[in-house]
Amino acid sequence: MSLLPAVVQDLIDQFAKLPGVGPRSAERLTFFVLRDPGSVANGLGNALLALEGSLVYCEQCHNLAEEPLCSICSSDKRDRTLLAIVEEPLDVVAIDNTGHYRGLYHVLGGAITPLDGIGPDKLNIKDLTARIEKEGIKEIILATNPSTEGEATAMYIKRFLAESPVEVSRLARGLPVGGDLEYADQVTLGRALTGRQAF
Amino acid sequence: MSLLPAVVQDLIDQFAKLPGVGPRSAERLTFFVLRDPGSVANGLGNALLALEGSLVYCEQCHNLAEEPLCSICSSDKRDRTLLAIVEEPLDVVAIDNTGHYRGLYHVLGGAITPLDGIGPDKLNIKDLTARIEKEGIKEIILATNPSTEGEATAMYIKRFLAESPVEVSRLARGLPVGGDLEYADQVTLGRALTGRQAF
Repeated sequence: MSLLPAVVQDLIDQFAKLPGVGPRSAERLTFFVLRDPGSVANGLGNALLALEGSLVYCEQCHNLAEEPLCSICSSDKRDRTLLAIVEEPLDVVAIDNTGHYRGLYHVLGGAITPLDGIGPDKLNIKDLTARIEKEGIKEIILATNPSTEGEATAMYIKRFLAESPVEVSRLARGLPVGGDLEYADQVTLGRALTGRQAF
Repeated sequence: MSLLPAVVQDLIDQFAKLPGVGPRSAERLTFFVLRDPGSVANGLGNALLALEGSLVYCEQCHNLAEEPLCSICSSDKRDRTLLAIVEEPLDVVAIDNTGHYRGLYHVLGGAITPLDGIGPDKLNIKDLTARIEKEGIKEIILATNPSTEGEATAMYIKRFLAESPVEVSRLARGLPVGGDLEYADQVTLGRALTGRQAF
């Protein structure tokens, strides 16, 4: 005998599939939603169902888009000689929000992760050479994550572009701003030392 | 110019309305869902939309139900002389899962919280006297939370039932099992001392 109605138990199970949501959090979220199903449940439910079918990826940079070309690729206010290569669409938002970058993007759709069966052929790498030639890109910034997978992906792309006449740079590694030297891990501190800059 | 399509931004906003989900977590949840909208988004979306209309509250104990009487109220295997008064439907699940209780429940729908404008009249308290008489209940266990609001609610119900011929008890307060005496807070340890039991 289940103590909860099937619709409620089903919602708990669905919430528990989200990352970082355990069985207890799923129960809490469900009972939060239950208190006012009319607004929260319908709002979130409709937003989720609206995704399928309405999601388009930019045919040039593979970012999320609403039209065949995303708002960045079709903008005439960007520096079209600069190309930042990132893993996910969220990275585009993060970099653009800094206000320090006005170039174009190229979204790989992940990083090379052999353990999960994600090789270079599953990422948007192949069309890079054609894009560089067609758009006259002069510098490529490898903006993959500073993780093992991100570094491996950056390394792979650097070799893949060895024949291309573009400059290739990588995001600086070092101490995070506002951080505490005492609490920095050894690898980060080591990078900050070897990559020290004239002051 | 928004960098994200409207459907994606809408989903982030909706996720951010959930308790414990900040703007960053909402972005992460959204991009997790985006990787495979077909399964996760549709599953969760449909589960959320299924709530409205299909949720029924037991007309006797106000617990969540699928029929006019919930599975506990309509069961013939429960001790019908015992009634546990709890705040939320989730508390019914928690108490029943202990295996130490086979009586009936009464779900208040919250606790008395004057600051949020929740007085006794907004909780399922009024019908308690009728229920006690009609069903021949002999003991009432006040199983509201051991919080300020829960204690106030328990106190209110005890007074409300002063004329009734039922025994009224309250869940024991003391050290949580598996806990460490050294880390127990003063109030809990004080309760454990005053409520000490013969051994």
